[in-house]
Amino acid sequence: MILENIKKENDIKKVPLEDMEQLAQEIREFLLEHVSKTGGHLASNLGVVELTMALHYVFCLPEDKLIWDVGHQSYTHKILTGRKEGFDGLRTLGGMSGFPKRCESPCDAFDTGHSSTSISAGVGYVRARDLKQENYHVVSIIGDGALTGGMAYEALNNASVLKKNFIVVLNDNEMSISENVGGISSYLSNLRTAEGYQEFKTGVKNSLSKIPGIGPATIKRLHKTKDSIKRLVIPGMFFEDMGITYLGPVNGHDCSKLIQTFQEAKKISGPVLVHVKTEKGRGYEPAMRHPARFHGTAAFDLENGLPLSSGGKANYTDIFSTVMRKFGDRDERVVAVTAAMPDGTGLKRFRNMFPERFFDVGIAEEHAVTFAAGLALGGMIPVVAIYSSFLQRAVDQMIEDVCLQNLHVIFAVDRAGLVGSDGETHQGCFDLTYLSMIPNMTVMAPKNKWELSDMMKFAVNYDGPIAIRYPRGEAYDGLEEYRAPVLKGRSEMIYEGNSIALLPIGSMVKTACQVYEMLKAEGETPTLVNARFVKPLDEKMLDRLAKEHSLLVTMEENVQKGGFGSAVIDYMHRHHPQVRVLNIALPDRFIEHGNPEKLKEKAGIDAVSVYKKIKEAK
Amino acid sequence: MILENIKKENDIKKVPLEDMEQLAQEIREFLLEHVSKTGGHLASNLGVVELTMALHYVFCLPEDKLIWDVGHQSYTHKILTGRKEGFDGLRTLGGMSGFPKRCESPCDAFDTGHSSTSISAGVGYVRARDLKQENYHVVSIIGDGALTGGMAYEALNNASVLKKNFIVVLNDNEMSISENVGGISSYLSNLRTAEGYQEFKTGVKNSLSKIPGIGPATIKRLHKTKDSIKRLVIPGMFFEDMGITYLGPVNGHDCSKLIQTFQEAKKISGPVLVHVKTEKGRGYEPAMRHPARFHGTAAFDLENGLPLSSGGKANYTDIFSTVMRKFGDRDERVVAVTAAMPDGTGLKRFRNMFPERFFDVGIAEEHAVTFAAGLALGGMIPVVAIYSSFLQRAVDQMIEDVCLQNLHVIFAVDRAGLVGSDGETHQGCFDLTYLSMIPNMTVMAPKNKWELSDMMKFAVNYDGPIAIRYPRGEAYDGLEEYRAPVLKGRSEMIYEGNSIALLPIGSMVKTACQVYEMLKAEGETPTLVNARFVKPLDEKMLDRLAKEHSLLVTMEENVQKGGFGSAVIDYMHRHHPQVRVLNIALPDRFIEHGNPEKLKEKAGIDAVSVYKKIKEAK
Repeated sequence: MILENIKKENDIKKVPLEDMEQLAQEIREFLLEHVSKTGGHLASNLGVVELTMALHYVFCLPEDKLIWDVGHQSYTHKILTGRKEGFDGLRTLGGMSGFPKRCESPCDAFDTGHSSTSISAGVGYVRARDLKQENYHVVSIIGDGALTGGMAYEALNNASVLKKNFIVVLNDNEMSISENVGGISSYLSNLRTAEGYQEFKTGVKNSLSKIPGIGPATIKRLHKTKDSIKRLVIPGMFFEDMGITYLGPVNGHDCSKLIQTFQEAKKISGPVLVHVKTEKGRGYEPAMRHPARFHGTAAFDLENGLPLSSGGKANYTDIFSTVMRKFGDRDERVVAVTAAMPDGTGLKRFRNMFPERFFDVGIAEEHAVTFAAGLALGGMIPVVAIYSSFLQRAVDQMIEDVCLQNLHVIFAVDRAGLVGSDGETHQGCFDLTYLSMIPNMTVMAPKNKWELSDMMKFAVNYDGPIAIRYPRGEAYDGLEEYRAPVLKGRSEMIYEGNSIALLPIGSMVKTACQVYEMLKAEGETPTLVNARFVKPLDEKMLDRLAKEHSLLVTMEENVQKGGFGSAVIDYMHRHHPQVRVLNIALPDRFIEHGNPEKLKEKAGIDAVSVYKKIKEAK
Repeated sequence: MILENIKKENDIKKVPLEDMEQLAQEIREFLLEHVSKTGGHLASNLGVVELTMALHYVFCLPEDKLIWDVGHQSYTHKILTGRKEGFDGLRTLGGMSGFPKRCESPCDAFDTGHSSTSISAGVGYVRARDLKQENYHVVSIIGDGALTGGMAYEALNNASVLKKNFIVVLNDNEMSISENVGGISSYLSNLRTAEGYQEFKTGVKNSLSKIPGIGPATIKRLHKTKDSIKRLVIPGMFFEDMGITYLGPVNGHDCSKLIQTFQEAKKISGPVLVHVKTEKGRGYEPAMRHPARFHGTAAFDLENGLPLSSGGKANYTDIFSTVMRKFGDRDERVVAVTAAMPDGTGLKRFRNMFPERFFDVGIAEEHAVTFAAGLALGGMIPVVAIYSSFLQRAVDQMIEDVCLQNLHVIFAVDRAGLVGSDGETHQGCFDLTYLSMIPNMTVMAPKNKWELSDMMKFAVNYDGPIAIRYPRGEAYDGLEEYRAPVLKGRSEMIYEGNSIALLPIGSMVKTACQVYEMLKAEGETPTLVNARFVKPLDEKMLDRLAKEHSLLVTMEENVQKGGFGSAVIDYMHRHHPQVRVLNIALPDRFIEHGNPEKLKEKAGIDAVSVYKKIKEAK
């Protein structure tokens, strides 16, 4: 076992080149063995084993900075930097994160989780390095999927003027999580097919000089850096014309070639883009066949790749998926927009049934929202399905392009609340705040699976910007008998009582039912109202509750600041100052990865914690 | 006068081609005459006179959709669509907006104000049109400056797969508001120099086919659309390889050529990019010499281009500018980041003194913030100066890349509060909410010009994410004698009294002083506390105020939801429920353009309104 000798960063430098292939094999076995037990990101990690090894072989950590875009492909990097043991507790509370974390190791240069940020962060490091006249290398590793995100271009645009070394590694597996989309993808595919071109040397220069506009910069560089001529291919001309040296494409599973290329890239002044071709899921048949399913996976049977648990009850995404199919069928104006998440958001079925009304725009949340505004103006009813934490990318577009024009765009905000093992960057803690601060926006959250369906129906028949937020995981199937029609700004009375009123929103209705039972067991007769709308508030219900209750308990899976409870306090303070309001909400801190139930306990929003807080407040 | 006969949309179609030049001249005179009196955007509008005329000549409004990126170049469009009279009241309360507004005319297809959105909106329209099997044209007109914004690439990426006609007009004046930056700019400059290439026809095809990777799609199109061969230039290959037909570059001041090109563009199936070269400020010498000064201008003397008013007192931007110079001098780690606004943010002086520590990243707020995170990790102290409404673009990056990693990045949030004549899209109404919802963020606002300076000093010496928000316009120079040291989370007692406590933040301290005097004149002895910090709140001061006051009046130029007042209510409700809190804040609606003082009256946050509300509340 070579892997046994890799105990910390830079140990890999001692491995003879001829053993690299075996090491890669051992790392893949290690990854498969562990991820099949713990779950985690698999396909992306299997794809970058050799790429990561070559980077660690050529660069010196922690002095040199490796910045992993998104970061779900950093497992081999963790293995090579002394964190093998961490894989036993991968993505569990208190265990190792599935993403780079500066607090875990000095070899993690930048905490990531969201896409397309690595070049920006890299340019920042480079500028700081050069100002301080320091002397380390900065390498940003970005996937072709992440290149559909606009900020990567903003960053490339700025990288292009750098005078000293900066390396961008384009990890091109022809996919993001799902198949990749759009013109960038076909541009890259033209580059990919140009592999034979590496051998091509002269002749081109001559034909080139005859073509006006080819850019004297390109020709000049061709003359100057003879060494890289064979790698400097015409198809990278967009990068070249921007001022970025293009190397590649390189086979991402050939360690020696990768090492050679990175060594070359190190020597170049200014920005370099190294185009590396990799295969997602490489080395594990089921992952190569179903890269999307093995992007992020639960524990699975290593033999056949099948999930170990049988899946359990339907989750909200499944319900949304079914509902979308239904509305797609009923109303031809209904169209669906996703930002590279046809599987994750449940829109795959809609895509299969109504391919012409389904739009996967790539990892491009900003565009997704403004595109939806255009669709609405053109007479469609767009449903934009984006996870809560990723929708943070499009706050401005929701304000300016949708709400300012008061357009009928439906936001299906999945993964709202605590998501669990993906951790800090993926928790949906802020959407109730950033959505309800916007004029004209209506904000809802369903208590159970039937209500998600009813709210979608309401949203389709509504006219204006409207958001529905729902959490990750199993959909609540209690309270089936409570299905009052959804009316704008109206809550739903579940149990009418007195003294204490529980006023939960969305996922917290289930928790509130547990609290209700605990209180009832003590002889209390609390009231339980399903809030349904965060904006507009059901002021009539608040007036009604004020009459017979001295304590009102709001419950939400969102930060308190600017959230549901805060809006209730504002109203009650103005109109019913005698009623005390207790806000149950997420604390004002980032919430780590781990089992969602445990995280809720830690955050004090589980049933027992709420019960205790009520007791204290009484 | 030809212009006299242009009374509504499509009237221009009756103007003989040979009269176009004269019409352009008349429009320029009209623009100069009016904008010199009312102020407004000038240079951008002078640049697109012929371009707009040609579009109106070729396309049929309102059926065809013209989408103006940013929209500050839509004056000629307004002239040609029956809104000449509107120019007398341009950008005044109740008068015509300086941006496209669907409520003004059916010829305005999309309300804009922020940059880089037009292609996204256009793709939305196109998709809707094609699904409904309608038959109109969609044209997005975008500047080369706006092409530094990432979402334009997200949109191009998606536009490239369209099967039916969609036209993107690249209005290339080699500038955004200020000089343009980065690699995209040099890429475009290579295209610009290729004008002679239009005549170039054959030969290329043959040499092309020998170069691997040139993309068979390009060659095929060369074969198919012979008509456009002469315009299909190699330098547009990036667009071509994405699947977008490239036409140009065309002289943007030659009406006939523009008309001819647009007529050709109309016929092409799929997406077309028409590259038009224009001159910002064309036809007015002072504006051509100083395009940045004449980007958005106050009323000026038409003879010499000099401003009519003498400028008055220093504004907050000036103070910030001076302070930045000082800190730049004192601490080599201080670096400045702007998103294409070196003038507007006041960073020009910093740039002149410390060019190597100044970074204009283009219209790229997302990149700006993550870039700053990288700078901070590399050991610098970045100051990111972005207007409040534009910083909405980078909410996710502030959360994930700066605050999650708890990095020392300073946000100088200019134009926070009501900005006036730019209107809805530019009002800074939400920053206190979106900033203070983020864990680890500290949020401040200064009462007067000296305090901005003191807060900057505090921010530079702080360690963590910190934002200072300040408004547009004249800096308050009252309360000079109140200059208690800035301490984290500590407010400043100005006048100690009893019964009513005024608790304003930032720009509202000035208003509160007026309210204070009004109350005092009636024999009251109110308290006035300058809040200074929105986050963290000064809880000790709130405890102290609770003891001797029955009414606490918070005052802010931000929406109430999730803002300063809401945070105060939350605290008081928990700890001092007997104290009533009155929130003075912006209403939950979009606020139109107009004189800021009048807007404040309408919004109910001027001194008289506040005074009245206090009287009612008592």
